Amino acid sequence: MKSDLDRLMSERNIDALMVTGSAHANPAMYYMVNGAKLGEVTVVIKKRGEAPVIIANSMERDEAAKSGLRVIDRNQFDGAKLLNEEKGNALRARARLMAAMLDELSITGRVAVYGREEQGAAFALWSELMTMRPDLQIVGEYNNSIFERAWYTKDADEVARIRAVGEKTMIVVGDTWDFLAGHRAQDGVLVKPDGSPLTVGDVKREIRRWSMDLNIEHPDDFIFAIGRDAGVPHSHGEDSDPIALGQTIVYDIFPTEAGGGYFFDFTRTWCVGYAPPEVEKAYHEVMEIFNIATDSMQAGASCAQYQKMTNDYFEAHGHPTTRTNPKTIEGYVHSLGHGVGLNIHESPRLSEFEGNLDTLEPGVAITVEPGLYYPDRGFGVRVEDFLWLNPATKTLETIGEFKKDLVIPLKAM
Amino acid sequence: MKSDLDRLMSERNIDALMVTGSAHANPAMYYMVNGAKLGEVTVVIKKRGEAPVIIANSMERDEAAKSGLRVIDRNQFDGAKLLNEEKGNALRARARLMAAMLDELSITGRVAVYGREEQGAAFALWSELMTMRPDLQIVGEYNNSIFERAWYTKDADEVARIRAVGEKTMIVVGDTWDFLAGHRAQDGVLVKPDGSPLTVGDVKREIRRWSMDLNIEHPDDFIFAIGRDAGVPHSHGEDSDPIALGQTIVYDIFPTEAGGGYFFDFTRTWCVGYAPPEVEKAYHEVMEIFNIATDSMQAGASCAQYQKMTNDYFEAHGHPTTRTNPKTIEGYVHSLGHGVGLNIHESPRLSEFEGNLDTLEPGVAITVEPGLYYPDRGFGVRVEDFLWLNPATKTLETIGEFKKDLVIPLKAM
Repeated sequence: MKSDLDRLMSERNIDALMVTGSAHANPAMYYMVNGAKLGEVTVVIKKRGEAPVIIANSMERDEAAKSGLRVIDRNQFDGAKLLNEEKGNALRARARLMAAMLDELSITGRVAVYGREEQGAAFALWSELMTMRPDLQIVGEYNNSIFERAWYTKDADEVARIRAVGEKTMIVVGDTWDFLAGHRAQDGVLVKPDGSPLTVGDVKREIRRWSMDLNIEHPDDFIFAIGRDAGVPHSHGEDSDPIALGQTIVYDIFPTEAGGGYFFDFTRTWCVGYAPPEVEKAYHEVMEIFNIATDSMQAGASCAQYQKMTNDYFEAHGHPTTRTNPKTIEGYVHSLGHGVGLNIHESPRLSEFEGNLDTLEPGVAITVEPGLYYPDRGFGVRVEDFLWLNPATKTLETIGEFKKDLVIPLKAM
Repeated sequence: MKSDLDRLMSERNIDALMVTGSAHANPAMYYMVNGAKLGEVTVVIKKRGEAPVIIANSMERDEAAKSGLRVIDRNQFDGAKLLNEEKGNALRARARLMAAMLDELSITGRVAVYGREEQGAAFALWSELMTMRPDLQIVGEYNNSIFERAWYTKDADEVARIRAVGEKTMIVVGDTWDFLAGHRAQDGVLVKPDGSPLTVGDVKREIRRWSMDLNIEHPDDFIFAIGRDAGVPHSHGEDSDPIALGQTIVYDIFPTEAGGGYFFDFTRTWCVGYAPPEVEKAYHEVMEIFNIATDSMQAGASCAQYQKMTNDYFEAHGHPTTRTNPKTIEGYVHSLGHGVGLNIHESPRLSEFEGNLDTLEPGVAITVEPGLYYPDRGFGVRVEDFLWLNPATKTLETIGEFKKDLVIPLKAM
């Protein structure tokens, strides 16, 4: 949580945080400026023990003010003059500009840098600044960064925002179910009133429209994949595919609030009309381990054990896993889940990799999403719920409830 | 253009390009994978003189194949084993993974890195890799990078995609004009059929809907700002503001194809019903310098001269500019224009800064957008067209034509 930042800085001996870049598609900046719509030259500096400060382009002063933070006009540092003095050397001028910002806030020592930027340019900039200013040490945290730690658990305000996205997503998912159920079948595929096949593209268009009406969006698209494509976990589906009866549809939807912000993440697998026996069997197994894993989850427990439990279960039921064969594309081929917040993938990781010390701390917001994939047999199954470990009750709450039926029955025509 | 990459690598003595990260909101990756929807662990490596190769998560093999490039399965490098050998040290394991990818393609020497990533993590990773492997030199280009140079001019395919977005944008802009013109006024503001004021938020909602119907989107939102807010160049506007007659509306719209891709960029300033004399005067001046600047543009000319010409013009007409006072928020406060492509702001820059050697090379796609801002007097004016310097004819073509009328007349009721 944001209130953890000073403690984390202190533990890691960081004198200041510096976050740069647009607030769009840049979670660290979005988090610091509370979602204000700031452009690519924005800088936020937080000295340890002090409130963060925005250094914004003067043209963006109104948006900057919406953050509630103190705003410094970037123009006061006169980048044009620095560029002049450096005879047009943009790298040296920019390094001096960043140094001037730190000087303005009387910062020296260990400065940790964050924010999504062009990595080559950032690598050059921070190397240059350290050469220029030996009193500054630029710290790059590779993993388990201060932000990743702060994001590890969600406070009540954050969960309220995630819940709002989740509730809207449930409406969209319900509309999708009803839309499919409301079509008639002909020659094994759903057809539109004019008799032409209903396609994946048609369904996706409606999903986008319902989402917009509810003010949620899909920055990383969503998955609505049928048949063989459902057997490829991250295939987004082919627009031209018809909705064939008895084929698995993996529908994985991970929207944010309009304009970016907190993600929600949710998956159902459906078959229209009926499900073939091998799909029913796989679905039953996925649901069984889903229930075993979630029923056994406890505050404070190691996350890796749930992935181990899932690998054990699927292997015992005769499925390949990436634990036994890292190259398999059949069976169980991903982790059981992950944290979700301003990033679609955050800590904790419900994965079995070496060094994974993640635990179910009170406040984590995670997905649980076992799946089985058999692309060559033309199907895939994944079921995913979003869970929050309520710190007050120490119990897991499902955010966004929706039935877990495999088959969408067709209405009698 | 993409065909320039090998020449640029050769000129800069770069042995390989390495691009990492998701293809979403990451232009270098989007460009290399031709828009394929690949996730955050994607790596593209291009050895000089050879075609680029994608190293993709096995789960994303279908999306990777859509790029048309050779695809290597990331799982073959067995990151889990490396993490094990490094006893859970994720940074060392990842550096070894990146080295293994370069080794797989027999790459040594100078490797330039690109792609939007968390900059602190990237700084740590590339520093670690260089320590680990003295035969590799990781190059970070700060500005005027190989990608920025390749993007400097657009080929026919790219312009066709920009034009498609531009044509759809013209439909949205026309719909917006008609929508405003179709409302009646009461007590100095536009009102809806029920008599309540039409607001900025109402108009924005319609703009989003028309955009979605045309399959264009607004990753960085758009500007529809009235009155004082129009006088703050990057204010996005307040949803609750009514559409008052005689107030300037700055409408700056910069959409992409749905799912990301090439941007278009366009601005008009409108007053509903009538324009006050001081707005008419400012509008006239903005249009005059717009015409002077665009009429004088020639292939091969220095870009800085057009900003100089604009500063000269506005100063001669009694306006402050950021050239004479970098801190002014009144008058002419930004540059005349910029290149547009997969980034909303690219080279060339129509700016007067030191070291700006940009020229109007055949193939540039630029905005021209003079403006005048007087927030304390409650108005702002900006007019922006999108121009492409056709390499075949060496003439500037306007992409997206729309009338430049200031006043939206109200229909007689």
